[in-house]
Amino acid sequence: MANFGGHAIPGTFFMFYGFWLVVKHILQHYWRTRQPKGRQLMPPFFKKLEYCEGGLQIFASFVGIMVEQFVVDGPHARLYNREESSWVKLMNWQHSTMYLFFGISGIASIACTLFKKVPAGIDRLTISLALFVEGFLFYFHVHGREPLDAHIHTLLLVAVFGGSASAMLEVFVRNNIILELIRAGLFILQGTWFYQIGFVLYPLNGDKWDLKLHDNMMFVTMCFCWHLAAALLLVTSTSSAVWLTVTRFSQRGRDIEIGMRNTSSKASAQKALLEQSDEE
Amino acid sequence: MANFGGHAIPGTFFMFYGFWLVVKHILQHYWRTRQPKGRQLMPPFFKKLEYCEGGLQIFASFVGIMVEQFVVDGPHARLYNREESSWVKLMNWQHSTMYLFFGISGIASIACTLFKKVPAGIDRLTISLALFVEGFLFYFHVHGREPLDAHIHTLLLVAVFGGSASAMLEVFVRNNIILELIRAGLFILQGTWFYQIGFVLYPLNGDKWDLKLHDNMMFVTMCFCWHLAAALLLVTSTSSAVWLTVTRFSQRGRDIEIGMRNTSSKASAQKALLEQSDEE
Amino acid sequence: MANFGGHAIPGTFFMFYGFWLVVKHILQHYWRTRQPKGRQLMPPFFKKLEYCEGGLQIFASFVGIMVEQFVVDGPHARLYNREESSWVKLMNWQHSTMYLFFGISGIASIACTLFKKVPAGIDRLTISLALFVEGFLFYFHVHGREPLDAHIHTLLLVAVFGGSASAMLEVFVRNNIILELIRAGLFILQGTWFYQIGFVLYPLNGDKWDLKLHDNMMFVTMCFCWHLAAALLLVTSTSSAVWLTVTRFSQRGRDIEIGMRNTSSKASAQKALLEQSDEE
Amino acid sequence: MANFGGHAIPGTFFMFYGFWLVVKHILQHYWRTRQPKGRQLMPPFFKKLEYCEGGLQIFASFVGIMVEQFVVDGPHARLYNREESSWVKLMNWQHSTMYLFFGISGIASIACTLFKKVPAGIDRLTISLALFVEGFLFYFHVHGREPLDAHIHTLLLVAVFGGSASAMLEVFVRNNIILELIRAGLFILQGTWFYQIGFVLYPLNGDKWDLKLHDNMMFVTMCFCWHLAAALLLVTSTSSAVWLTVTRFSQRGRDIEIGMRNTSSKASAQKALLEQSDEE
Repeated sequence: MANFGGHAIPGTFFMFYGFWLVVKHILQHYWRTRQPKGRQLMPPFFKKLEYCEGGLQIFASFVGIMVEQFVVDGPHARLYNREESSWVKLMNWQHSTMYLFFGISGIASIACTLFKKVPAGIDRLTISLALFVEGFLFYFHVHGREPLDAHIHTLLLVAVFGGSASAMLEVFVRNNIILELIRAGLFILQGTWFYQIGFVLYPLNGDKWDLKLHDNMMFVTMCFCWHLAAALLLVTSTSSAVWLTVTRFSQRGRDIEIGMRNTSSKASAQKALLEQSDEE
Repeated sequence: MANFGGHAIPGTFFMFYGFWLVVKHILQHYWRTRQPKGRQLMPPFFKKLEYCEGGLQIFASFVGIMVEQFVVDGPHARLYNREESSWVKLMNWQHSTMYLFFGISGIASIACTLFKKVPAGIDRLTISLALFVEGFLFYFHVHGREPLDAHIHTLLLVAVFGGSASAMLEVFVRNNIILELIRAGLFILQGTWFYQIGFVLYPLNGDKWDLKLHDNMMFVTMCFCWHLAAALLLVTSTSSAVWLTVTRFSQRGRDIEIGMRNTSSKASAQKALLEQSDEE
Repeated sequence: MANFGGHAIPGTFFMFYGFWLVVKHILQHYWRTRQPKGRQLMPPFFKKLEYCEGGLQIFASFVGIMVEQFVVDGPHARLYNREESSWVKLMNWQHSTMYLFFGISGIASIACTLFKKVPAGIDRLTISLALFVEGFLFYFHVHGREPLDAHIHTLLLVAVFGGSASAMLEVFVRNNIILELIRAGLFILQGTWFYQIGFVLYPLNGDKWDLKLHDNMMFVTMCFCWHLAAALLLVTSTSSAVWLTVTRFSQRGRDIEIGMRNTSSKASAQKALLEQSDEE
Repeated sequence: MANFGGHAIPGTFFMFYGFWLVVKHILQHYWRTRQPKGRQLMPPFFKKLEYCEGGLQIFASFVGIMVEQFVVDGPHARLYNREESSWVKLMNWQHSTMYLFFGISGIASIACTLFKKVPAGIDRLTISLALFVEGFLFYFHVHGREPLDAHIHTLLLVAVFGGSASAMLEVFVRNNIILELIRAGLFILQGTWFYQIGFVLYPLNGDKWDLKLHDNMMFVTMCFCWHLAAALLLVTSTSSAVWLTVTRFSQRGRDIEIGMRNTSSKASAQKALLEQSDEE
């Protein structure tokens, strides 16, 4: 993964996942606000979404693990080299481990939707755990690198552990739209920051950054805040767009419905009148 | 900002903001305690206050960013100097970033009041985020300075991160007067501490402090606690004053009202009597 | 305070305060469990207790400040020595600051009981703040000492910050007997640990401890856990004793009451019988 | 304890305890979900379980303390050697202290079940405290060891302090199956990790690990995540197995019951018919 592409792929994935979470949670929130208090059963449409999401997560994790293991210079499922008494490609193994936990989270998400007996909250617990493991491995990963390299990865941890903490909170505070959007926003932040790491450590124009310059670290810190602002903006605009679209569609739907009812009620009124006149 | 004035301006701003928060939240609390349980709609007066506050916040942030950028020795919206391969005035850029987040918080505050669909709590989330970004930038800012300089800025972080944490709690625990006053008090503390930083690092009488003396650091630590005590006193006295004033005014208002009702009821009673006697 | 007595005095104070808290909170808990759900007004007896406690706290803080300031080798309210350009007795000033915050907590406790409008929870907030300030000053106090000296004071901080955190929680979770007893237990722990610090740093038999020996630090760490176990035992036994005493007394009281009622009802029954027979 | 066995014994204990917790809490959860809202009294069967568990905990702690003290090279209840002016076998004393707190937790667990007046939550508080003390002693224990040795013990602390935090949460959030399973899972993780520590530091095949190699530390970090995944799997499969078994058994029980009722109701119906016909 020590190249630009290796950072762009997870970055793209996390950004898309974040956007998807915004769309899904806004739809769910819309649906929740429309429901009377008593009825809180998730409609089949959302269930299907969860299955798709979980299935994709499992599939992506599986592909990720396979790629990390069986890429040309990968470990090929071999952990220890007895001849040379050394571990084989630990970096790839670590990435596989991260994918494994995202896969587990996908399984938990499906299980939660499928079986009513699985306590709600397990899906959030496993996503929190997946983010924790990601941060945990990155944390010990960073040790002993160049200052800027270490710093830029440490900043990533803010997004990762922040996401883990907010997902953990969701185990106890369910259906809180703010928490759900925070989680989504932190996924987007993580995604854009992966791109930033790629740009800084493997610049596309070949202009190497000085990894020891203090000013570079100060810029990168500030840049992280800009990414945060951008993530805020993206979450806000996406959720507004989704909300407005849904509101408009459902209103038109209702207008039509009401219109039809009106027509039919008029029709039935006329019918009734005709029948009355017939009787007379 | 490397002079006394550069610390006095934000200090004054934060102190006034803190006081304003005390007044606003005591008024809201008074209003809440007077309401019957069911009716919890904010009256138009408070809405107007929120618009003014948000508008001022946005305006101040905009001015702050402009000043930081276009001051004589500012970066003039230029981030990177290609000729010298160096960042341009990162300090000013960092301050602009802080202002940006306070501006975002102003926008969120207005949006929360304007649109009923924006979940309550977003305003607190953004103010928490603004404080977090402020502390975050200061934290990496401080690195590699003289001991006393680093220490006095670290103490500032206690107020900043404390405020961020208490605002974040308010996302979940709404309308808790204690949390609201803690937040206000921490803004006041931050304000007075900015002044203290100014006095210590850029003394007005020109008597430089020894930035390496351990005793100076011990004094400064203790001094922070005194500022905390002063902030407590200020919050308590301000809120008592506001509460008493409001109570007196509203009582007088009610007395007059009751008085008028009595008069009118007497009048109507007399009228009724007269009418009765007329009928007889 | 650099002698055994200087550690024994606060130690004794904190131990007594901890015991007192156990007794008070068990009494309150007993009273709460006996009340019907609706009626939760504190009886005048508890109000008087609060006034006494608050008053004593204020008085003790005042005496503490005076002693620290006007003791023979104290600063005599003088903070800075212009001739020698040095701070005067900062240690005494720091202790005065700690006392100040415990005094503030006393004032808040009285204000909370006296005025119904002061939000409940302010008393816990100020005690939390007093402990925070104590720990905060100790934390920067310890810097640059001998390893064992630093370590033994750091362990004190576990009790101090633990108490501060649990008191802060009580601002939000009111009338939880477990939290109240944790707070009391941590005061007792702090008290006994002050004694331990005195014994280690200023041994009574004059046998100096080696302040650099790693084994001494290991022993001291373990010893802290023993103090914790002892505090647990003390809290448990005290609260059991108080609970049993109160239960017995109130039962006897009720037995007598019931006995009297029985007697009187019998008497009235006999009376009624006599009257009946009279009538017959 | 500086051998493989010394790590295998606590490892085995913690693993069994974790499994036991899964079984117990799933049974309790099953029972809770079957109860109507009003009736939440624990049936005698669960009470007996608590007594057994508490009793075993006390017994195991007692045996542990005795073994640590009176093993051949143990301290034999002697803390300080005056002749040599040195502490006697502090390691054994530390382990005794850990056992002591697990014993206290056993006592609290029994007291909670036995006396209705002991506030629910004390049992969780003491288990949280026992884990805290374990982690606390380990934390200062590790200081000054070889990098890999220190690192592998630090990872243990993640499981220990995680368990302590989740048990502390349970003091306030009662009967939450997710928290209960997290606690159980962290016990299992701690158990398997003790085995791992044994395998790494005292390899059975005598092949010593290089305690300074960075790659070994990276592997061990990743390995901890695998243990976490394994613990997740074990908790999930055990709880599913227990749940399914209980559901099947109770259904069969009910089927039989219903069958019997049917039979008897038919019988009584026949009887009634016969009687009717008799009357006719």
